[in-house]
Amino acid sequence: MEKDLSGEYTFKVLPFEVDFRGKLTLPHLTNYILNTAGYHAEECGFGILAINQSNHSWVLSRLVIEMTVYPKHYEKIRIQTWVENVMRMFTMRNFAFLDKDGKVLGYARTIWAMIDQATRKPLDLVHTNISDFFCNKECPIPKSGKIPTLDGDPKETFTIKYSDIDINQHFNSSKYVEHIVDAFTLHKFEKRDIRRFEIEFIAEGKFNETIYLHKQESRDNEFVIELKNENQHTICKSKTWFGERTD
Amino acid sequence: MEKDLSGEYTFKVLPFEVDFRGKLTLPHLTNYILNTAGYHAEECGFGILAINQSNHSWVLSRLVIEMTVYPKHYEKIRIQTWVENVMRMFTMRNFAFLDKDGKVLGYARTIWAMIDQATRKPLDLVHTNISDFFCNKECPIPKSGKIPTLDGDPKETFTIKYSDIDINQHFNSSKYVEHIVDAFTLHKFEKRDIRRFEIEFIAEGKFNETIYLHKQESRDNEFVIELKNENQHTICKSKTWFGERTD
Repeated sequence: MEKDLSGEYTFKVLPFEVDFRGKLTLPHLTNYILNTAGYHAEECGFGILAINQSNHSWVLSRLVIEMTVYPKHYEKIRIQTWVENVMRMFTMRNFAFLDKDGKVLGYARTIWAMIDQATRKPLDLVHTNISDFFCNKECPIPKSGKIPTLDGDPKETFTIKYSDIDINQHFNSSKYVEHIVDAFTLHKFEKRDIRRFEIEFIAEGKFNETIYLHKQESRDNEFVIELKNENQHTICKSKTWFGERTD
Repeated sequence: MEKDLSGEYTFKVLPFEVDFRGKLTLPHLTNYILNTAGYHAEECGFGILAINQSNHSWVLSRLVIEMTVYPKHYEKIRIQTWVENVMRMFTMRNFAFLDKDGKVLGYARTIWAMIDQATRKPLDLVHTNISDFFCNKECPIPKSGKIPTLDGDPKETFTIKYSDIDINQHFNSSKYVEHIVDAFTLHKFEKRDIRRFEIEFIAEGKFNETIYLHKQESRDNEFVIELKNENQHTICKSKTWFGERTD
């Protein structure tokens, strides 16, 4: 029998992590995903603290989340994670979200690069031991697709502040997601749930930068949101699909 | 021997809860305080889920935090909590923050009102069983003082968004704290730590309201920040004392 190289971690959804409907928000789910990746990578020996010793760091490049059901406050969510693949510059890590009884709530896919902290350039992953941890487990959601670039006037602007900045001195990944979901009204969430969300992290946001948020409804209830900096360089691009609210 | 009516809960500081220096942020510490209060009240029988059944709810009115040392990511923080007193309209709950070895990191004081969810009016607490849980434990930090009201032009404005709204359909308490600490620069936190923080919650912020942030340095490194709504009504007032950074 093959050894199970996946990891599983349980989180209890706290009251401050839910929205006005009592459902776990996407930015907080993103935090759970980042923590889960961190815990599992640490157990495998390539966690952030371990690779920091060689002045390397992990950078999240892409994230796709599909949710059928969102857990509510005080509910437990079990998150399984495993490494799917390693390419030259990237490694793919997937996630399954389960409720306490093992019912599937959703899935996520992530793509990571390992960078040199001094040069900020990606490192070759082929000769690392990450491939020892491949796990042949199904992740039945489509990979991330191409997200168009938006032109035209921004919908709004904001400034990157103290709470947006993480320990790497950059704009925190889950804070990008927070600014994106905040571009929607409560009315939208009263009627609908986010069924699929894709984000591509392109450049690093820095303290005090003004960020321009561009938003376009590409189809009915399918939104492209792009964040650009003061030089009109893209910081990240995202796509959000809303479906009927299920409860 | 008297029965110990205090509670103790342990939190592990996660990477997304720390700032660029690796220190737990004040808004995340506020979340820990709210969770700790919630867990202990639940064990005492007057938690939010229990009192919701009578259409009552807890509302945080005042919060004071004093910190000597901030825990860093992956460190554990033990939070002790106990009820100090009950007045007609308010109850006082205190907190002690300890590291894993029992060294005191800081203290907090909170004042809560119980409201009727329909009328939003405070209820009389004298005839409740909260006084059965009084605990004669020392909280060696001064109670909250009077915070002046600010006039003049606002320093900045922001809009209350989806992520700011909690399950009671109001502006989340820890999000007030987040907007307040975000009025300071990274430069300030490079040199200094917040040693004492006081906040008085006065009115409830609602979705899509524009909030005006007023800020004044009342003494050297002592700042009053007040949030007002579109009608110039005060939403909350706060005072932040910075001291020398200790590490």
